Amino acid sequence: MSFSLIQEVLEPLQSMRLIDPHTHINPHQPASKTLADILGYHYYTELAHSSGMPKSQIEEPGLAPKEKVGRLIPWLTTIENTAQYSWLLEMCQVFFGFQEDRLTVDNWEALYDRSLKQMQAADWEQHVLDRSGLDQVYLTNDFDDPLQGFDTKKYVPCLRTDDLVFHLGKATVRERLQKATSLTPTNAAELKDAVGKLFAHFKANGVRACAISLPPDFSPAAVSAASASGLVSKVFAGHDLTASESATLSQFVFWTLAEYCVEYKLPFDLMIGVNRRVYEDGVFQGQDLYDSRTSLIQYKTLFNAFPTVLFPVSVLAETSNQELVSYSWIFPNVITSGHWWYSNIPVHIETDTRARLQAVPMTKQIGYYSDMYKLEFALPKFAMYRRILAKVLAEDFVIGRRWSVNRAVSLGRQVLRGNVETIFGKCD
Amino acid sequence: MSFSLIQEVLEPLQSMRLIDPHTHINPHQPASKTLADILGYHYYTELAHSSGMPKSQIEEPGLAPKEKVGRLIPWLTTIENTAQYSWLLEMCQVFFGFQEDRLTVDNWEALYDRSLKQMQAADWEQHVLDRSGLDQVYLTNDFDDPLQGFDTKKYVPCLRTDDLVFHLGKATVRERLQKATSLTPTNAAELKDAVGKLFAHFKANGVRACAISLPPDFSPAAVSAASASGLVSKVFAGHDLTASESATLSQFVFWTLAEYCVEYKLPFDLMIGVNRRVYEDGVFQGQDLYDSRTSLIQYKTLFNAFPTVLFPVSVLAETSNQELVSYSWIFPNVITSGHWWYSNIPVHIETDTRARLQAVPMTKQIGYYSDMYKLEFALPKFAMYRRILAKVLAEDFVIGRRWSVNRAVSLGRQVLRGNVETIFGKCD
Amino acid sequence: MSFSLIQEVLEPLQSMRLIDPHTHINPHQPASKTLADILGYHYYTELAHSSGMPKSQIEEPGLAPKEKVGRLIPWLTTIENTAQYSWLLEMCQVFFGFQEDRLTVDNWEALYDRSLKQMQAADWEQHVLDRSGLDQVYLTNDFDDPLQGFDTKKYVPCLRTDDLVFHLGKATVRERLQKATSLTPTNAAELKDAVGKLFAHFKANGVRACAISLPPDFSPAAVSAASASGLVSKVFAGHDLTASESATLSQFVFWTLAEYCVEYKLPFDLMIGVNRRVYEDGVFQGQDLYDSRTSLIQYKTLFNAFPTVLFPVSVLAETSNQELVSYSWIFPNVITSGHWWYSNIPVHIETDTRARLQAVPMTKQIGYYSDMYKLEFALPKFAMYRRILAKVLAEDFVIGRRWSVNRAVSLGRQVLRGNVETIFGKCD
Repeated sequence: MSFSLIQEVLEPLQSMRLIDPHTHINPHQPASKTLADILGYHYYTELAHSSGMPKSQIEEPGLAPKEKVGRLIPWLTTIENTAQYSWLLEMCQVFFGFQEDRLTVDNWEALYDRSLKQMQAADWEQHVLDRSGLDQVYLTNDFDDPLQGFDTKKYVPCLRTDDLVFHLGKATVRERLQKATSLTPTNAAELKDAVGKLFAHFKANGVRACAISLPPDFSPAAVSAASASGLVSKVFAGHDLTASESATLSQFVFWTLAEYCVEYKLPFDLMIGVNRRVYEDGVFQGQDLYDSRTSLIQYKTLFNAFPTVLFPVSVLAETSNQELVSYSWIFPNVITSGHWWYSNIPVHIETDTRARLQAVPMTKQIGYYSDMYKLEFALPKFAMYRRILAKVLAEDFVIGRRWSVNRAVSLGRQVLRGNVETIFGKCD
Repeated sequence: MSFSLIQEVLEPLQSMRLIDPHTHINPHQPASKTLADILGYHYYTELAHSSGMPKSQIEEPGLAPKEKVGRLIPWLTTIENTAQYSWLLEMCQVFFGFQEDRLTVDNWEALYDRSLKQMQAADWEQHVLDRSGLDQVYLTNDFDDPLQGFDTKKYVPCLRTDDLVFHLGKATVRERLQKATSLTPTNAAELKDAVGKLFAHFKANGVRACAISLPPDFSPAAVSAASASGLVSKVFAGHDLTASESATLSQFVFWTLAEYCVEYKLPFDLMIGVNRRVYEDGVFQGQDLYDSRTSLIQYKTLFNAFPTVLFPVSVLAETSNQELVSYSWIFPNVITSGHWWYSNIPVHIETDTRARLQAVPMTKQIGYYSDMYKLEFALPKFAMYRRILAKVLAEDFVIGRRWSVNRAVSLGRQVLRGNVETIFGKCD
Repeated sequence: MSFSLIQEVLEPLQSMRLIDPHTHINPHQPASKTLADILGYHYYTELAHSSGMPKSQIEEPGLAPKEKVGRLIPWLTTIENTAQYSWLLEMCQVFFGFQEDRLTVDNWEALYDRSLKQMQAADWEQHVLDRSGLDQVYLTNDFDDPLQGFDTKKYVPCLRTDDLVFHLGKATVRERLQKATSLTPTNAAELKDAVGKLFAHFKANGVRACAISLPPDFSPAAVSAASASGLVSKVFAGHDLTASESATLSQFVFWTLAEYCVEYKLPFDLMIGVNRRVYEDGVFQGQDLYDSRTSLIQYKTLFNAFPTVLFPVSVLAETSNQELVSYSWIFPNVITSGHWWYSNIPVHIETDTRARLQAVPMTKQIGYYSDMYKLEFALPKFAMYRRILAKVLAEDFVIGRRWSVNRAVSLGRQVLRGNVETIFGKCD
């Protein structure tokens, strides 16, 4: 009985068109060109490497796409159990007409060749968008992205600020800032001006959010211009900062971003909890992990200081979800956002979705984003989320609260899309 | 099949009469007088505020009850998904004959007027107690509560001690202590005597527990009278304590309370994990949150030092539940107690109930308390818990362990009421 | 429907023969001799004590086995709800033909007498192994265990190293090391040599793993021989180390063990998170608890430094499971291992199993070990795990991913046994 009920809730959710509010899509090359673009996603390379595949086989310079896929295929047998593998299978089945339930050394080549032809079609990108029901795809843009040459109504700019906050100590980052703004800051006020120019540029190009990923030990705090000026001057003169100075400069820049979010009326996406390069010899993008000992209490000052800025918050550790639910229940400006990275597997999504739907105002929940690098991934990732969402709506609301199916579906629609529009601005 | 089985387990649990072992009921005004008393509960005001309702609209001085309800109603549409809203609906349906499944701008006024008449009936309080099956309601009494003018067999005193432990630095608290005890402590021994007078007064009035809520970073420790005396003398002379002195004084007073719990044979309710005033501009009682990084290891010294004191422990963060289960499984004097505040939503109650029933002696579990401010809330809150308890009993015990329904119900009765009687003392 | 499906997945898993990759079996006395050996397991004594049974009644010197059981029986009524009690019942039913569903003061004596006769049979040990389907049982051997007098192909040695890492400050431990190695280390190199002799001895006797349990605050780090030498010399001269010196020596010895694991190609079992002697007056082995605030980030340096050593990791707190899953997903040398101690109850096993099967390569998961002290416990503990595993496989893979039952069973076989063979070496 409950399976057919879940199905009844799921169908209207599946036929909805979507906005994907956080991705790493390159708008100049949004879709995959070969199966290697799909299998090159770090979820597959890192899992194959975790199973024993040498990094050198994956990242050999000049490796041809087909050869790369051929090398990865045998290792995929060790990860057939994973949710990530199920995404792969669903993509192959839906987009490339793959009929089998496993990728093997015997069947991959035919799939590779057939999929290659499909991906070479001129309308492949649009085909993927249509088949996936995607109206808009939010991007993760470097602060010096010219934002030219693509439709910013379809591929929506978001200003990613990790480099500004954490990497001004690197000459390349400072040079990029100087080039992007034609400014060479020598004090706090000038650095603020430079950051302001970035916001103005992004605003002129339809930016919908400022975004950043943060390590577990980060605590935002206001830093006076007086304290920051010396550090700005020192770092832009090319001198190394101490760890403590560097942390203070990070706080200053972070706080400055929040101030511009007020001025430019932008939500500030916080993705909290990642430690970079924990596994030093890991494959590309397969090196980051975390320390689950982090708390939103570290953001108390920020949330209090910026009541007019909306903070869609993603947490990396599932153990942080209850705090996220509680802080969103209390703070008007805290929004629950998606199921990020290591929490993006069904067992955690289900528990987290239940908790959010049971305790956070329905207007303050961004259900899901794909975090994808290539367009093809939105379909299986959102499909996974929609199946879980339908299950929770059916069990907790239709059965548990005696809601009608229609009412449950309407709640589903709101967290899947409605809130994305109200929080980041409507799809034009 | 399993739904009818859950129903079979649930029915006898639903018809049980209850003792509610922790509430904030005012025994001089236990029931609501208008719907504003119900909707004024911080669960609704804080969620409405979280959804965007300005605090000034909620807390306007002199606001008439009906006007307050009328202002809140439109915001309730944003929280229809929450467990808290489901309590509201159940109260309106059961107590006021509300027939609809939503409170709207169109139907609220009729409900308000009808419910007002019902609440004005002379026997409303008794009607709510009867309809809810409540035999006893435990209170949260200020240390200087005269405990006069109400039936302490029905409304059972519990000595709440947050002010004594954490707020002796406030002149008002010291004055209340001086007034209640006719003592002005100038050293540790005299402060102990003053606290002892409070215990004697409460004992004479049927107190059943000492209780306190504690921040995540609190660690109980014995403090010598010599170390404490200087601090007592300093604070009662009206001087400010440093943060470190204040923490030591808190430890001294807390330890003193535990010593009196030995002498007066009282359980000591510990409610662990709350940070006060995290959201500084939040509505009344809607400002507190937490840091889930806390551990019962901080209570190691306490649990070892007071083997004859029972400690019913509530944890605020669901991530602390496994520690609570494990500490109760090992320490004879640690009891699992209820599902507190941010953990009091179905998804967490279910997991926590499962873990406790699977690993803690059945005699050491206090299933639930309502934490209510007005009598009407016991019914929907206990109903929510009983439904979850019945589900866990049916699935894990009747199906999973092949227990008879009767045996499962008997376990349910024990955690719902039997243990409250053995731990705090029988209902006279 | 799903119950019969779970049954279909469960049956082939139940009929599998097993290797138990972590136990505390004494190979010279592997099976129980009386019911007191079973009820003397700390899970029962600590729960009875937690319910109120005085320690003195349990640990009275010279207490006869039957008297001990007779004393424990009345207290067992308070723990009938626990998973631990269900193991007891299953053992009594399967091994001793017990027909009732409760142990009571009326029926225990007949059971005691009948079981005593059965356990006195010459082939009792083999009977238990056969009935439980056990091919091999891994041990927990003291570093100075002679490893003589038993079949190391059946009872497989594992080198337990807690004493070496954490207790060289105790004279008895140093004496045992000196006796076992005929060496008296006076510097770091000589201590390394002594440890090397232990590895050589264990290797000659078929050791399959080095193993250790670790407190929540331990962080492995390389320590130079120069830094360590002074500490080795000081401690072996019988002087006390400071807490800081002691911690450094622990790190040195731990790192040395990892180096020998490289040389001897041994997996290094890490059991992370236990605080010893938290409840000081607890019964034997019923005193340890934990602080859930621990992170695998503390092992970053270790996992990076020893890429050729496999680390099967067990975590004590369920809140650490997601980190374990994530670290195993990223680090090739991190393996998920079993469900340890306070996490070894159905509610946590189910969630943890789901997460691991959804995100860790199937080759890197050791599903379960019994941790038993007496052979009879493998049967009910593995039965509990197999039922949960079958449920997860049926729900998440057969239903959720549309796998065939055979394919799901094959995944179950791999985590139950196949991986034990590939990670620790095949059963000869």
